[in-house]
Amino acid sequence: MNSDEFRRHAHMLVDWMADYFDRVGELPITPDLRPGDIARALPGSAPDRGENFDHIWKDFQSIILPGMTHWNHPGWFAYFPANNSPPSVLGEMLTATLGAQCMSWATSPAATELEQVTLDWLRQMLALPERFVGVIQDTASTATLVALLSARERATAHRAGTAGVAVPDGRLTVYASTEAHSSVEKGVKLAGFGLEQLRQIPVDAEYAMKPDMLERSIRADLDEGRRPACVVATVGTTSSAAVDPLPAIADICRRYGIWLHVDAAYAGTAALVPDLRSLFDGVELADSFVFNPHKWMLVNFDCSAYFVRDRDALVRTFQISPEYLRTASDAAVVNYRDWGIQLGRRFRALKLWFVIRHYGVEGLRRMIRSHVALARELAEWIQTSAEFELMAPPRFGLVCFRYRPAMPAAQDSQLDDLNRRLLARVNETRRVHLTHTILGGRFVIRVAIGQRLTERKNVEEVWRLIEQAAAGL
Amino acid sequence: MNSDEFRRHAHMLVDWMADYFDRVGELPITPDLRPGDIARALPGSAPDRGENFDHIWKDFQSIILPGMTHWNHPGWFAYFPANNSPPSVLGEMLTATLGAQCMSWATSPAATELEQVTLDWLRQMLALPERFVGVIQDTASTATLVALLSARERATAHRAGTAGVAVPDGRLTVYASTEAHSSVEKGVKLAGFGLEQLRQIPVDAEYAMKPDMLERSIRADLDEGRRPACVVATVGTTSSAAVDPLPAIADICRRYGIWLHVDAAYAGTAALVPDLRSLFDGVELADSFVFNPHKWMLVNFDCSAYFVRDRDALVRTFQISPEYLRTASDAAVVNYRDWGIQLGRRFRALKLWFVIRHYGVEGLRRMIRSHVALARELAEWIQTSAEFELMAPPRFGLVCFRYRPAMPAAQDSQLDDLNRRLLARVNETRRVHLTHTILGGRFVIRVAIGQRLTERKNVEEVWRLIEQAAAGL
Repeated sequence: MNSDEFRRHAHMLVDWMADYFDRVGELPITPDLRPGDIARALPGSAPDRGENFDHIWKDFQSIILPGMTHWNHPGWFAYFPANNSPPSVLGEMLTATLGAQCMSWATSPAATELEQVTLDWLRQMLALPERFVGVIQDTASTATLVALLSARERATAHRAGTAGVAVPDGRLTVYASTEAHSSVEKGVKLAGFGLEQLRQIPVDAEYAMKPDMLERSIRADLDEGRRPACVVATVGTTSSAAVDPLPAIADICRRYGIWLHVDAAYAGTAALVPDLRSLFDGVELADSFVFNPHKWMLVNFDCSAYFVRDRDALVRTFQISPEYLRTASDAAVVNYRDWGIQLGRRFRALKLWFVIRHYGVEGLRRMIRSHVALARELAEWIQTSAEFELMAPPRFGLVCFRYRPAMPAAQDSQLDDLNRRLLARVNETRRVHLTHTILGGRFVIRVAIGQRLTERKNVEEVWRLIEQAAAGL
Repeated sequence: MNSDEFRRHAHMLVDWMADYFDRVGELPITPDLRPGDIARALPGSAPDRGENFDHIWKDFQSIILPGMTHWNHPGWFAYFPANNSPPSVLGEMLTATLGAQCMSWATSPAATELEQVTLDWLRQMLALPERFVGVIQDTASTATLVALLSARERATAHRAGTAGVAVPDGRLTVYASTEAHSSVEKGVKLAGFGLEQLRQIPVDAEYAMKPDMLERSIRADLDEGRRPACVVATVGTTSSAAVDPLPAIADICRRYGIWLHVDAAYAGTAALVPDLRSLFDGVELADSFVFNPHKWMLVNFDCSAYFVRDRDALVRTFQISPEYLRTASDAAVVNYRDWGIQLGRRFRALKLWFVIRHYGVEGLRRMIRSHVALARELAEWIQTSAEFELMAPPRFGLVCFRYRPAMPAAQDSQLDDLNRRLLARVNETRRVHLTHTILGGRFVIRVAIGQRLTERKNVEEVWRLIEQAAAGL
């Protein structure tokens, strides 16, 4: 494909892309198909001879597109959002065209320095301490693993990395609430702590970690000769957007010399809004902090912002310096390859820069405020309805509820079943998409309001569909 | 930015992108600047109010672009290539626009099934065993870490993941040649083996692992009660593209029950070419295999293809199944979130599909053959020149050499210094970009021929620039 052909195809795609932004809300949000349908529609082996792009493009439209789940649909209330936005897509177009591999400063100085600059912008926007330095990771799962590895290395004075995790003086332990994200479990497993060394700390009635139970658990481990290495606190848990009490947790971490990682993957963007910033109080005492601009800040997946207090502790955990990667500038620059797991790195700062500049801090705040206001409104409708109940305090853009009709002596298991059916019916409309969780042992429906295009009418629609589905059960 | 504004800006970008493909060869391949120059040209904090895209675009052109290293320049001979291509960029444009997060089948069925299909196409294209199943990882660093973690779990019957790496019955050991990629060291450190448990096996005169030394090392560890867990063999090492003898290594791994991971990050694409496929003989005995379509197969970074023999061993190492991620289809589908470290996943199969279909297997073979032929030609010029010497057998697209003028009793340290200066001079032309390595203790210049746009005239130019720089020393 020469550049003229590229030009022609790319212009055609741009028109399709602009139309997609306009019409995505009219598409079925999830596809109606069975496992294997897409695979069966595709040839079993690669073509020997190249094909014309027009042919490939036709297959994209007839086979792939109808099989997509549309995360950027205004009826998206599932999981948490993974927003893109027009300026972010423009950034991705340029990143793809330049195709720079940004592992070191020398392999793309502008990419490294733009990452430094935009991450410092984010630090200021979230009112994080001046000492924090940032780096883009792909996902919060990776960032949390990076934090756990750094904590492991700090707790062992870097002997774990050199001699292995089998430290002679007792097993290393990790603490997170029972509501922490599954990436903590995964990270504890992968980093070699072992799942048995993860303490799942009980939560209060609002699903936030109980600091007294944390301290009790730490003391018990110390008494048994174990070595508490890391506490993962969450601001905005996945199930209910609960907020762990950072000041009390940070105080415990300080007293016992434990690494504090704060996971605000979803909610972090809310720290932009002065009214919501107090929910992050105490974050200044953390050793590491992660939030995902690719969730609620209009930056295309993947772009996870990871901040650390002690840059050297991070770099010492990840640095490997083979001859073939050495450059003349190494002593004077940041080489982000030493700030995480991967050697190769995409130029992800570009889309972040485009988004922050195009919307401005005020524009991003406006969006967050509007989503939070819509979530409060939906929570009110639920609260004033006789047949539904809130299952957690609404936080940020997330509302957790269940259907609870007047039934003689309704049991939780019956209600679980009823809500499971309710959720399936709502999703079968393919107008909106919702997911569930379990809170306090009960099946709960989640409505996460945070998609860029979501307006009041979409929230009204999801509520209407929920009420209709309930009436039809 | 509404869709009309997006349409206007995106069309403008497409014209710029097509022009970039045309004119990249005329740009200085590396920027002429000092650390901090780009950062100083940018404001210290984010704008409160949103800015017009035309303004941002102007800054991209005047500040960012002049600070880029152009990896997709036909004068790119540094490291290994990180090629993009027009059809791959078209794929990235659509992936960005859809913005789907492909962690589970249900969160985007077409993305999951297209990944299954295209990875199976790759498996056939590389003549890997039918039993191998593939998954896209971001980088080979990650894939190698995934392999090391899987090996760790297999060696401990998954006790490392549950109880921690501190297995009672002795430390786990890992083996790779002294020429293996730095990601092996990094992975051994991160996975909790500890660097002291990495055995760096000596290489022969062609920089390939010596299998007898591998076996000797394994036996010594067994004698001391250690537990050999993983061997990483390389096809196409980073320094010299050396090929470890897979059949002999695989035989040892089989006899001692050790996980064999084959790292063909760069060279893997060459397995497409029947004449070169014999260099991969023995790969069918591996437990895992990685190669990067984002290096030499025209797919935008990131796209690393990771294959395993035993899907269950992989999934059992990475699976975590929290309630909020469960879907009705879980039992019947592949959920790629359980096939690696990250939970969130981009729709990377799309660009891979576009590239394979647009070029066809024959088109990709043609490119590989042409690069390999150019490398052989350059190696001949070097060999027939009185003042240069090859420092390793040319393999695939890589040529390693040094300048060795007729000097009375020239010592390696003098030659190292001379070649360091030679390399700097060639790179200062900003017409081409080369990097170096150390082979057998000697400073060596690498010319990696594999950029999509690189033609014979570019190889002639790099050779002319090398000769000119040498003459001017």
